Amino acid sequence: MKQSKLLIPTKKENPSDAEALSHIMMERAGYIYQISAGVWAYLPLAYRVIRKVKGIIQEEMEKAGAYEMETPSMLPADLWRQTGRYEAYGDTLYKFKDHNDREYILGPTDEEAMTEILRDSVKSYKKLPLVVYQITDKFRNEPRPRYGVLRGKEFSMLDAYSFAADEEGLDEAYQAQAKAYHNIFDRAGLHYKVILADSGTIGGDNSQEFSAPAEIGEDVIVYTDGGYAANLEKATAKFDAVQQTAEPGKLEKKATPGAHTVDEACASLGVDQGQMIKSMLYMAKMGEDDYQPVMVLMRGNDEVNETKVENALDCEELELASEEDTVKYLGAHPGSLGPVGVGEDVKILADNYVKVLVNMACGANDDGHHYVNANIDRDFRVDQFGDFRNVQEGEIAPDGYPIKFTNGIEIGHIFKLGTGYSKKLGAQVLDKNGRLVDMIMGCYGIGVTRMLSAVAEQNADENGLVWPDSIAPFDVHVIPVNAKKDEQMAMANELEQQLTAAGYEVLVDDRKERAGVKFADSDLIGIPLRVTVGKKAADGIVEVKIRKTGETLEVKQEELVNTVGILLKQLDKQTSND
Amino acid sequence: MKQSKLLIPTKKENPSDAEALSHIMMERAGYIYQISAGVWAYLPLAYRVIRKVKGIIQEEMEKAGAYEMETPSMLPADLWRQTGRYEAYGDTLYKFKDHNDREYILGPTDEEAMTEILRDSVKSYKKLPLVVYQITDKFRNEPRPRYGVLRGKEFSMLDAYSFAADEEGLDEAYQAQAKAYHNIFDRAGLHYKVILADSGTIGGDNSQEFSAPAEIGEDVIVYTDGGYAANLEKATAKFDAVQQTAEPGKLEKKATPGAHTVDEACASLGVDQGQMIKSMLYMAKMGEDDYQPVMVLMRGNDEVNETKVENALDCEELELASEEDTVKYLGAHPGSLGPVGVGEDVKILADNYVKVLVNMACGANDDGHHYVNANIDRDFRVDQFGDFRNVQEGEIAPDGYPIKFTNGIEIGHIFKLGTGYSKKLGAQVLDKNGRLVDMIMGCYGIGVTRMLSAVAEQNADENGLVWPDSIAPFDVHVIPVNAKKDEQMAMANELEQQLTAAGYEVLVDDRKERAGVKFADSDLIGIPLRVTVGKKAADGIVEVKIRKTGETLEVKQEELVNTVGILLKQLDKQTSND
Repeated sequence: MKQSKLLIPTKKENPSDAEALSHIMMERAGYIYQISAGVWAYLPLAYRVIRKVKGIIQEEMEKAGAYEMETPSMLPADLWRQTGRYEAYGDTLYKFKDHNDREYILGPTDEEAMTEILRDSVKSYKKLPLVVYQITDKFRNEPRPRYGVLRGKEFSMLDAYSFAADEEGLDEAYQAQAKAYHNIFDRAGLHYKVILADSGTIGGDNSQEFSAPAEIGEDVIVYTDGGYAANLEKATAKFDAVQQTAEPGKLEKKATPGAHTVDEACASLGVDQGQMIKSMLYMAKMGEDDYQPVMVLMRGNDEVNETKVENALDCEELELASEEDTVKYLGAHPGSLGPVGVGEDVKILADNYVKVLVNMACGANDDGHHYVNANIDRDFRVDQFGDFRNVQEGEIAPDGYPIKFTNGIEIGHIFKLGTGYSKKLGAQVLDKNGRLVDMIMGCYGIGVTRMLSAVAEQNADENGLVWPDSIAPFDVHVIPVNAKKDEQMAMANELEQQLTAAGYEVLVDDRKERAGVKFADSDLIGIPLRVTVGKKAADGIVEVKIRKTGETLEVKQEELVNTVGILLKQLDKQTSND
Repeated sequence: MKQSKLLIPTKKENPSDAEALSHIMMERAGYIYQISAGVWAYLPLAYRVIRKVKGIIQEEMEKAGAYEMETPSMLPADLWRQTGRYEAYGDTLYKFKDHNDREYILGPTDEEAMTEILRDSVKSYKKLPLVVYQITDKFRNEPRPRYGVLRGKEFSMLDAYSFAADEEGLDEAYQAQAKAYHNIFDRAGLHYKVILADSGTIGGDNSQEFSAPAEIGEDVIVYTDGGYAANLEKATAKFDAVQQTAEPGKLEKKATPGAHTVDEACASLGVDQGQMIKSMLYMAKMGEDDYQPVMVLMRGNDEVNETKVENALDCEELELASEEDTVKYLGAHPGSLGPVGVGEDVKILADNYVKVLVNMACGANDDGHHYVNANIDRDFRVDQFGDFRNVQEGEIAPDGYPIKFTNGIEIGHIFKLGTGYSKKLGAQVLDKNGRLVDMIMGCYGIGVTRMLSAVAEQNADENGLVWPDSIAPFDVHVIPVNAKKDEQMAMANELEQQLTAAGYEVLVDDRKERAGVKFADSDLIGIPLRVTVGKKAADGIVEVKIRKTGETLEVKQEELVNTVGILLKQLDKQTSND
């Protein structure tokens, strides 16, 4: 294919509003164009990448026994009302009406429509399990679109849905999907962690999140070299502290004027953060109009993990108390809060690491004052101990390996959904015994356009994009240094023919641009191999450059096809070993 | 592929609301599911057909030098305001807002976004011509969706756009697209007519409509065996009448009580329709608040072609006069109108076929009365003669062949757009002389999901769908008569392997259903060849049935692959010769 015929508007300058490397390089390399904040067009190079990703997905889905279909983007609001998600999604949904005032939404996901279709199409367990999928645009009224196509308002997603008459059928589909996800991400050259969520009662996991480590990732992933991976919200570490044995000192109230933070209070008192108690007041929503004030105690250098606190309280919602509530319950402002003298109306939770401390410092519930030598039971009460903190890097994970942190981009998620949607939409089948049972569902999703961001983020360098060959827009970029020279263009065309005949996709830069411009554009675009046709063309010699490593080698024309094959195979192996 | 794994909800009964054969059969065969009026899901079989149609389009577009990309469905309303189409499309657009009250529409077509992208991406004639295309969902707030997926609110469309710096570049792209369209429709097995529109000033046509003859088609196509094709609005025929020579009789007013139609008036007067003048009063909008009453005279058996009248008047709009206006200008109600005595304030147009008549009958502008022996000039004035009528079947077309009528489904349209959008959106490039010039555009569209309706409409029979092999969901439908019999299933699996290895797509009906159900479903689904594995399987013999013709033949297993190849080739030839 000739570069002059393709719309590839490369840019020399970074887009002014771009923060992420993937965004910068995809825009500079002429892959994407922003139509409106968070709304993107995919130009021909990006579309070739998308097509390849889709191709991989289609192959792996079919292997997993899932078959492609397509539901519309516009979905009846009433259908979403039946499952309560019209309200639950709220402003995240784009809403509009037709001529007859029928209300529609643009689908952000598709459990409703798929369940309705299956409900009306399948009446007997004999036709189950069935797995269907689609790769369609989804819509989300995203208040803060950012990072290019990573978080946009309209994006391409693979969503698959399994329907079974029993748990075995569900598990079979779930396992097949899990395997397909590994294959898809492996083939696309992505590095990723698999985060298992809540273990189901029937054994095995019921949800797996696939997350691609990347600096701009919006989730913190806790992982180890032993294979442990969890979201920070759920990660746990081995408890590693011993009971302190110092003699309890005398509780003393000290003035700490101007000390509002843990750091400032420690400095003011000359106390180590490990002996300072951070006291946070929360309001826990226990039910309709039923709020319980909760104080959480933590070492000064630890962070509260609100998910763990929520789970311990089994509350509907947990919110930091307002300044008003803080003064009301504790008589002081944040910065000087502590457990000493707190009434029974406030529940006090303390992290396990607090339990072993003796002679702690803490706020005195008197603005500008702290206590030293506070001790549990003697000076304050704790209603419940537990693991309420975020794990920290270097701690030991449940698998015995030291914990590492990375940011991650969520690229896929598989779920055992159960019967929630089936119940709400009446999707039942007759079972073996002739009884009506709810279909048991699973749902599975991959962000397709998001995958492009993740791959770009993991592979791009300061010169541009670097694509794994499996999803690169082309395999080989042939560059005649001077397209005005007939013999160079003739050789470039010949190479294109030879490589194409051998099954490779070739882009020929036939533009009459300076060599420097062409090379810079080639690096930006990021095709795995570049073949330069220059002065040695007369001797039948071209230069091959590997985009990823920058290595170059001179190759005789008659050996080029062979060399390209070997190099691409090597690159593929490196990718899978990375 | 095994039928038990695919969602194919066939139905025995016709859907109650379906009028079109294509709709009935696509729904009964489990291809489509209606989510909401005019909003459809494409189930796995339909999706396979769509994928093949897309594949053909992609191949032909690439051959034509057009490259795929994708713009979003949600488009900024402001962009559409810049071209005036936000107002022009009015209620046809679906409109909604995001979190920040930014207004969006769902794109029904995409000139605006494409022009904007090219404007920002290309600055010099050196990068032109460029042709881009996309196959995406389009949206139209269709007040009367009907005929299944033929006219829906959301549909898949190919739209291509060419950008050139000069007329030659435009013409080159236009011709390449025209050729691609022929290839696409030919390969998909569609019968179609090509309707040329207005000849451009630079020679050659500037618009071609591709229309598939079908009973449910919403356009009337006028065509001949000589290759002439036109919409009824534009079709012309050779003038074929001679001047009547009778002596002018005496103008007489006669009572025609209760005669409101041409038929009734002719009967009342004992006059032939060919001598009766039909007089229609229109209001022609010549400008803002400027309406001109116009009477159009026509033989009683002819029909007014309002497009021709509009063109003759060069008016903005033409509407039948209200009863109020009719009484105001003519003093009578429709049914008794005529040209005799009409004042200068009403312009009178007459069809050429009126000019040759002598002693006509016509309304007397007096309710319940007609004149006989009315003659031009003597009794009434005509301001302008011309071709103002619809052609009729059997008349002679400009190419010398007799005219035929058929209904047609518009499946494609190519246009030389010119610079309208470029001007409005400021899409300019520097030309060879360093001057800024507007990009010259072409636009090209095919209704992808609509093609399914058209193909189904042209090929389905009373038993179900009949797909051309090129876009059929599978090539061969293998049916073990009794899936409970191991030897039949074993042979079916073996045939699947052999045929798949030979490159054919095979669906195996492994369901434990009665043979009658399976055969009926197979006819409904419409795969070109059915291979039945029955009693003679023990002797290594299967039956092959050609879906289109119903012919059957017995084939030895070892000859099956070969036979399938021959039969599919024959079918393909028949399709292209049809």
